Amino acid sequence: MRAKSSFADLVTEVDGEAERVIRAEIAADFPDHAVLGEEEGAQGEPGRYRWVVDPLDGTVNYAHGYPVFCASVALEQDGERVVGAVYDPTRGELFTATRGGGAFLNGEPLRVSGVPTLDTPALLATGFPYDTSGERNLAYVARVLRLGVPLRRPGAAALDLCNVACGRMDGYWELGVQPWDVAAGSLILEEAGGRVSDQAGLTTPYGPMIVATNGALHAELLDLLRDGE
Amino acid sequence: MRAKSSFADLVTEVDGEAERVIRAEIAADFPDHAVLGEEEGAQGEPGRYRWVVDPLDGTVNYAHGYPVFCASVALEQDGERVVGAVYDPTRGELFTATRGGGAFLNGEPLRVSGVPTLDTPALLATGFPYDTSGERNLAYVARVLRLGVPLRRPGAAALDLCNVACGRMDGYWELGVQPWDVAAGSLILEEAGGRVSDQAGLTTPYGPMIVATNGALHAELLDLLRDGE
Repeated sequence: MRAKSSFADLVTEVDGEAERVIRAEIAADFPDHAVLGEEEGAQGEPGRYRWVVDPLDGTVNYAHGYPVFCASVALEQDGERVVGAVYDPTRGELFTATRGGGAFLNGEPLRVSGVPTLDTPALLATGFPYDTSGERNLAYVARVLRLGVPLRRPGAAALDLCNVACGRMDGYWELGVQPWDVAAGSLILEEAGGRVSDQAGLTTPYGPMIVATNGALHAELLDLLRDGE
Repeated sequence: MRAKSSFADLVTEVDGEAERVIRAEIAADFPDHAVLGEEEGAQGEPGRYRWVVDPLDGTVNYAHGYPVFCASVALEQDGERVVGAVYDPTRGELFTATRGGGAFLNGEPLRVSGVPTLDTPALLATGFPYDTSGERNLAYVARVLRLGVPLRRPGAAALDLCNVACGRMDGYWELGVQPWDVAAGSLILEEAGGRVSDQAGLTTPYGPMIVATNGALHAELLDLLRDGE
């Protein structure tokens, strides 16, 4: 039996140490680039280039030893995501993309699924925020389940996006994600032929809710997640 | 882009073929043993020994290419589970147990977590039935989330039980599971020091709801899943 409180301390350490290593690598090669990371926040002058880093996405899973977590690193140029990489060490899977250059899993080209509608059925994923908006998400979950659409909740946003990118899932939404959770994965998904928007359908991964699909069922999922019905 | 309807046909084939292979192996070595399988139902005279087989648990995941699925095989002697094996081919993980002989992952002894309470926090998993009891499960999910307890929904019951057995998760419940979903995993969990019951706390994995934990938080989880509150 292991104590999870000591695990939690360990996670904070691992998280911080991983971000320090990533920041050091970036600083060595690109000393004038800014960095936004989950652990240490913003660093450097806002300029043309900003790296957006989540050294450990799926922290709760990692803390418990549940092997669903990853590292996520993206590069923005003039505010636009241009490079993204997500690494799942438990499966040895590296997802990568460059703007306009396609998306890849361990070097092989990726493509989203062709599932056309939710009732095909699609396989969806969501995440739950650990605050009061959890109640709001429960209402969305209920709608999805009433349609008979299978839903997963793996617990690592960047991997959810990559799962949609490689066609293992067909759509994903989550409230309250941060830029470091989705910067890399959203570019990978777009480059794999998918679509990313906020709840209103505006093309941005950084809204209060991210909606990400294979493209084909984007409008249908947005409609399902509409408020005030 | 791949069509998922053709995938669904493929899955039925794979599922059936895997069960035929498993039944043939059993018949070759134990011609007088009965077999209960998800695909072909009950076979053979009820006697001292019955094998309980799910050739592909996590069928929906498999059909979509989401790598969370397994094969589950158990042996009952006079109605009691005495041998269990669950294999996750995507991670190369084989979970095994014999009644009174302990539980193992790829030959290494397993032990449940020591997490004492839900608010440690524990990491829980559930599954959603694809029928009207889904609404009932949503109410349980809401209670768990209101407590701030992280919840996962991976989609393969046998693996959920094995995740609790090896301490990656601390508890799991699901409505409407069938014997082939839980026969092997429940023995593996019990042999790893965990506890399995129905919703009322009776020691059986075959009730209308299975509740499975590390033992320490079993009473607390049962209380949370009580109806009529």
